[in-house]
Amino acid sequence: MDFAHDAETEKLRRRLLEFMDEHVHPAEEVFRAQLAEREDRWSAPPIVKELQAEARERGLWNLFLAGHPEHGGLPNLRYAPLAEITGRSPALAPVALNCAAPDTGNMEVLTMFGTPEQRRRWLEPLLDGRIRSAFAMTEPDVASSDATNITTRIVREGDEYVIDGRKWFITGALDPACEILIVMGKTDPEADRHRQQSMVLVPRDTPGLTIERGMTVFGYDDGDHGGHAEIRFENVRVPVENLVGGEGEGFAIAQARLGPGRIHHCMRSIGMAERALELTCRRVLEREAFGRPLAVQGVVREWIAEARVRIEQLRLLVLKTAYLMDTVGNKGAHTEIQAIKIATPRTVEWILDKCVQAHGAAGLSQDLPLAAWQAGVRSLRLADGPDEVHLRSLARAELRKYA
Amino acid sequence: MDFAHDAETEKLRRRLLEFMDEHVHPAEEVFRAQLAEREDRWSAPPIVKELQAEARERGLWNLFLAGHPEHGGLPNLRYAPLAEITGRSPALAPVALNCAAPDTGNMEVLTMFGTPEQRRRWLEPLLDGRIRSAFAMTEPDVASSDATNITTRIVREGDEYVIDGRKWFITGALDPACEILIVMGKTDPEADRHRQQSMVLVPRDTPGLTIERGMTVFGYDDGDHGGHAEIRFENVRVPVENLVGGEGEGFAIAQARLGPGRIHHCMRSIGMAERALELTCRRVLEREAFGRPLAVQGVVREWIAEARVRIEQLRLLVLKTAYLMDTVGNKGAHTEIQAIKIATPRTVEWILDKCVQAHGAAGLSQDLPLAAWQAGVRSLRLADGPDEVHLRSLARAELRKYA
Amino acid sequence: MDFAHDAETEKLRRRLLEFMDEHVHPAEEVFRAQLAEREDRWSAPPIVKELQAEARERGLWNLFLAGHPEHGGLPNLRYAPLAEITGRSPALAPVALNCAAPDTGNMEVLTMFGTPEQRRRWLEPLLDGRIRSAFAMTEPDVASSDATNITTRIVREGDEYVIDGRKWFITGALDPACEILIVMGKTDPEADRHRQQSMVLVPRDTPGLTIERGMTVFGYDDGDHGGHAEIRFENVRVPVENLVGGEGEGFAIAQARLGPGRIHHCMRSIGMAERALELTCRRVLEREAFGRPLAVQGVVREWIAEARVRIEQLRLLVLKTAYLMDTVGNKGAHTEIQAIKIATPRTVEWILDKCVQAHGAAGLSQDLPLAAWQAGVRSLRLADGPDEVHLRSLARAELRKYA
Amino acid sequence: MDFAHDAETEKLRRRLLEFMDEHVHPAEEVFRAQLAEREDRWSAPPIVKELQAEARERGLWNLFLAGHPEHGGLPNLRYAPLAEITGRSPALAPVALNCAAPDTGNMEVLTMFGTPEQRRRWLEPLLDGRIRSAFAMTEPDVASSDATNITTRIVREGDEYVIDGRKWFITGALDPACEILIVMGKTDPEADRHRQQSMVLVPRDTPGLTIERGMTVFGYDDGDHGGHAEIRFENVRVPVENLVGGEGEGFAIAQARLGPGRIHHCMRSIGMAERALELTCRRVLEREAFGRPLAVQGVVREWIAEARVRIEQLRLLVLKTAYLMDTVGNKGAHTEIQAIKIATPRTVEWILDKCVQAHGAAGLSQDLPLAAWQAGVRSLRLADGPDEVHLRSLARAELRKYA
Repeated sequence: MDFAHDAETEKLRRRLLEFMDEHVHPAEEVFRAQLAEREDRWSAPPIVKELQAEARERGLWNLFLAGHPEHGGLPNLRYAPLAEITGRSPALAPVALNCAAPDTGNMEVLTMFGTPEQRRRWLEPLLDGRIRSAFAMTEPDVASSDATNITTRIVREGDEYVIDGRKWFITGALDPACEILIVMGKTDPEADRHRQQSMVLVPRDTPGLTIERGMTVFGYDDGDHGGHAEIRFENVRVPVENLVGGEGEGFAIAQARLGPGRIHHCMRSIGMAERALELTCRRVLEREAFGRPLAVQGVVREWIAEARVRIEQLRLLVLKTAYLMDTVGNKGAHTEIQAIKIATPRTVEWILDKCVQAHGAAGLSQDLPLAAWQAGVRSLRLADGPDEVHLRSLARAELRKYA
Repeated sequence: MDFAHDAETEKLRRRLLEFMDEHVHPAEEVFRAQLAEREDRWSAPPIVKELQAEARERGLWNLFLAGHPEHGGLPNLRYAPLAEITGRSPALAPVALNCAAPDTGNMEVLTMFGTPEQRRRWLEPLLDGRIRSAFAMTEPDVASSDATNITTRIVREGDEYVIDGRKWFITGALDPACEILIVMGKTDPEADRHRQQSMVLVPRDTPGLTIERGMTVFGYDDGDHGGHAEIRFENVRVPVENLVGGEGEGFAIAQARLGPGRIHHCMRSIGMAERALELTCRRVLEREAFGRPLAVQGVVREWIAEARVRIEQLRLLVLKTAYLMDTVGNKGAHTEIQAIKIATPRTVEWILDKCVQAHGAAGLSQDLPLAAWQAGVRSLRLADGPDEVHLRSLARAELRKYA
Repeated sequence: MDFAHDAETEKLRRRLLEFMDEHVHPAEEVFRAQLAEREDRWSAPPIVKELQAEARERGLWNLFLAGHPEHGGLPNLRYAPLAEITGRSPALAPVALNCAAPDTGNMEVLTMFGTPEQRRRWLEPLLDGRIRSAFAMTEPDVASSDATNITTRIVREGDEYVIDGRKWFITGALDPACEILIVMGKTDPEADRHRQQSMVLVPRDTPGLTIERGMTVFGYDDGDHGGHAEIRFENVRVPVENLVGGEGEGFAIAQARLGPGRIHHCMRSIGMAERALELTCRRVLEREAFGRPLAVQGVVREWIAEARVRIEQLRLLVLKTAYLMDTVGNKGAHTEIQAIKIATPRTVEWILDKCVQAHGAAGLSQDLPLAAWQAGVRSLRLADGPDEVHLRSLARAELRKYA
Repeated sequence: MDFAHDAETEKLRRRLLEFMDEHVHPAEEVFRAQLAEREDRWSAPPIVKELQAEARERGLWNLFLAGHPEHGGLPNLRYAPLAEITGRSPALAPVALNCAAPDTGNMEVLTMFGTPEQRRRWLEPLLDGRIRSAFAMTEPDVASSDATNITTRIVREGDEYVIDGRKWFITGALDPACEILIVMGKTDPEADRHRQQSMVLVPRDTPGLTIERGMTVFGYDDGDHGGHAEIRFENVRVPVENLVGGEGEGFAIAQARLGPGRIHHCMRSIGMAERALELTCRRVLEREAFGRPLAVQGVVREWIAEARVRIEQLRLLVLKTAYLMDTVGNKGAHTEIQAIKIATPRTVEWILDKCVQAHGAAGLSQDLPLAAWQAGVRSLRLADGPDEVHLRSLARAELRKYA
């Protein structure tokens, strides 16, 4: 359980920091300007492609894909410090490195479960950053934290699967560059609870698939990364070759997909917290009220110290989890993945709240990224199952030791 | 200190509840539809005028204006239960009753400090709901919680005041119906700390006044109630008759204005919390996960019970404060006003956070008002001075008892 | 719902404050000295009797006994501000006024359910302060929050009840002045859940009743008010006349007893918080660290302000509950009694924790009452059922509105 | 930064666990019985000596003394998992291994700063476990978190130092086995702030040294490990050879002493939390209320899961700090030592509070160690400086990065 960076990781860290300083941070202003001017509010600004080209050239590409060094993937423990750095500019850096959700999870699914043809058709352009993708699981009418609640039907008719249902909060699906969706539905409602679901690949332009609207999160439509779509599936037909894995394997694939996705979010959230803390320290050192800088006020200092204490603990837990994923596998790291899924969003949310408070009204506004980040981490307390579901499961694991 | 409703208040309560049921709640859907369709994103939908006409007819008009029964105003203690009810539909009910911020505070200022001509020209149309107004105090470049930081200059030249400066988060100023702004600036930077500021009335169409943009709060532009403007004042000239009160009285007027504004926010926030709790109870009774309604889960129950315990305490403190404002005056109730200013936003924010959590992703979205309300109460932890300023002042008052 | 003190209450308040200043506070030092010197560590020091004589003379006697003005009892709302004052010296003032638990609850039970003979034999000397009493419900081997768990048996044999079982945390029972116990046990384990229990009066010197030891609470044996006894009942026989109420009424009597007991604890806890806050303000004004008084440190100020904000809310909720108990009865005030039972101990515990912190090591020690008070309020989070049971019940009541 | 246990540490862990199972845990009952029976309430029961003999024989002796393998000392990172295990029986295991405070810190001081004669006379019997010691720094009349406040005088007269002053909360000093105190006082009040203090060795039987009383902590006198003495020094004379280090080096020595002391407390506190959690899991699995085990209640489960999440983060931060102390030294690990000093007591206090709550009244009592442990960790929020002092210092370090 060695958390120090090895030489190779350290080299990548330095390279990435250089890329951040030379390209990503300067691009933030450009990105905002282009966002304001673009015609399609769901499309990515052109600066993203430029950054991607630059990152790829520098060998900062697909680093997330643990277990697949042939695509540039690093073990989780080595990816962690890099992902954290990308979290310092979360709207730009992850996508610049082709390490942005939900594509990352989808690439993992296709790498693990895709047929050669599926990989050629969808994985390759994703690995190249030529297209984007979405993952359609959550439904509006049921508690999706319980996968057995899913109501979307996937029915085989001859050589086709016919999909009917409704999904929402399908992140990225509004992006015109999104070409493919992995859709979860029930192929056999009579099977065992965890064998009812299957996943199929559905091209976004398939007839019967209607994107109805973008959902907002605390007022943000997140149009800079493809929004959160509500989608209707009516008699949507795809060839049976589009099945991912086997029939009834949807739940297992979803489980396999979640672990890495969660830890990536956590890694990046820590970088976000670090940058927010940096912004706040700089601000309180220069801002004055009642004749002295905010930085000398006891309450502000307490926030800063608390943020440092909490970030340190959080990072170590994430690193330990990454180490376990690398050594005993995602299943073996199940409890730790749940622990970071619970601990990270609320901790970073607390830090961002204090950072907003230290910035005054500006902290709430579009002039700083703090409020948007806070909305993002807050939504993580619900995404992939609310905290409460994970706490319950963690408690069961703990109690099982003594039962 | 009798908090029971007298017969007259009870009659008004029943009348208001009837109005809510018959008109306001049914209008919420219409309001949303009209918001989506209107051309000017900063204008109020037409349904608002219809509700105003209906409310006025029913004698539910200007109830907020304590001390002025001739305009319909009620004592704070009697207004409190009515304002709470309007908080259950905060985007519609307060404005329907002509009891919405920031007009309420501006009407109070004009009632107390306006010249007869100022009252005729601006107060009357405000009392009639014919125009709207804004209050321009906060500035982007300084900590506005310390009023002595204000940098906007108001310089007398002959019969005119010339205003130069920059303001932001000026709520309501983007509404085309907003005709008048009360602007705070410094007339004498050499005077005593609290005698440097003055207030002048500035019609929104005065040359040199430029509304540059709307600020967002957690992604919301609040265009349904006139947004939060950033405004540039360059060589803006108004006649000296537009001075409110005397030169150097700006700080005192601002103080007088804040008390009622704060308690109104608190009253409405409690109504908001009650409605959120009701929505949540209904939701968890019907929503199932893992085979049983959310309502039987221990953690969800704890949220509900906690919300009830906290609301009860909060309401009583607001009522006590209202009682004190009515009996010993706003100054005499200073400590209590600070106490509710601190206690209310964070308590209601906590409740709304749990209500969002109980609703899952829908709670974060535009389909429910919860996230928008949470953004609103969170901004109250900064509006009119951050909590920390008030806590410090409260502590000083407590320590003074023993010094 | 008028919380202002009427003239009569105000007169009593002034009289009580005078008594506190002239007698109780000066006696605190004497009390401690006598505690250290007495021979029986479970006996009350002689100063208590002196204070009782003085209080009785001044008409400050049995004020707690709501509904019984003939004994000096006041309505709850009028008793509340007086009980709060006694909480400022919780080891001395309540007992000085013959208003200390558990006698208060026992006197209520005997007043409501006692036979004339029981009242003559036990109630009169209790009302006179000549003897003390205990209430034996909690058992070591079961979760007593669920009264149906009780295992102590009360079996009728001829003209006697025979009691067998084990009780613990029986407050006051170690005091040599304690002459009588009200014991709860099961007379009919086959009856309906809430009809199985009965209560009987058991003189402390009855053969078969063995007091085994005193339980400690955070290291305190509470020997100044009779400790918390563990008691064994082996073939303990009392005449059938000692039954309180009827057979099977034990649960109902226990319920009736709890409401007033809880609110008295809450009233006093608020007085305790006020005194702790006063001690703290005085301390931080005079104590210096790093060259300036603690009172100017932002974090210390925040504690003080927070304490004030929380106490205000708490007191109002307790007053509302008192008002409801007086007007709609203890049953009608059930939800509010639960709310204060939950809100008070944790709020006062938080305040005491900060007060300890502001006092440094002295705050933890025998030189100040803070740590002992904190242990006391902390135990209230468990006494009469843990908070969690009450939160669950409160949530059920809230949900029932919509079911 | 490799946190995995190496083979040697793993061997020691297994050996220690065996010792715990075979000797320490079985001795807990004996220890309690002997405590109740001993004549001198400040003396250690005889079982302690027996355990020490056994531990020493097994090579589990003086493991704490980092940097001194010749005495059995291990690097901090290797000691951490062992210290954690001793925390599972905190009254017995640390002393059994001669790894108990305050002797550990005193042995470190003598190892680093003692003269050969001082080491022969005092360090050797301490390393042998033949005597015990105390460290006298805290004073009753000043804020000792600011060492410059110290008022005890150490004045050189000829070949002697003369000590006058008053100390309190001197842990261990009441134990009759305590033979030597390290006393901090001012030799030169005119010197620079951090050069005024010196330390001298004072045998406990020196004339003029009077132990006045034992201070309690939440009602506990901690007589099982020598209590917390208040000590008067009146014209106490020791030879100048008893000076530790040089004159004016007292502050520097105190700083050097604190780091390891703090991390040892943190390591053991984690073990305490683990054992409390284990006790709680076992309890809630078997205890029933309202017809089902407590373990199925949502709120109880949340406590258990939270405890696990918090312990994991805490342990990793303590391990990182240990690693830094070993590699960059105690000074280099200053910020991390402060972080664990802040994070550990409050986290473990929170866990113990929930464990108490899950145990009901028994949790508060002498029948379980939970309340006593909670009092102990709570006192750590004040010992060696209150949390607030450390938070401020941590914030300063963070802000310095950007100043």
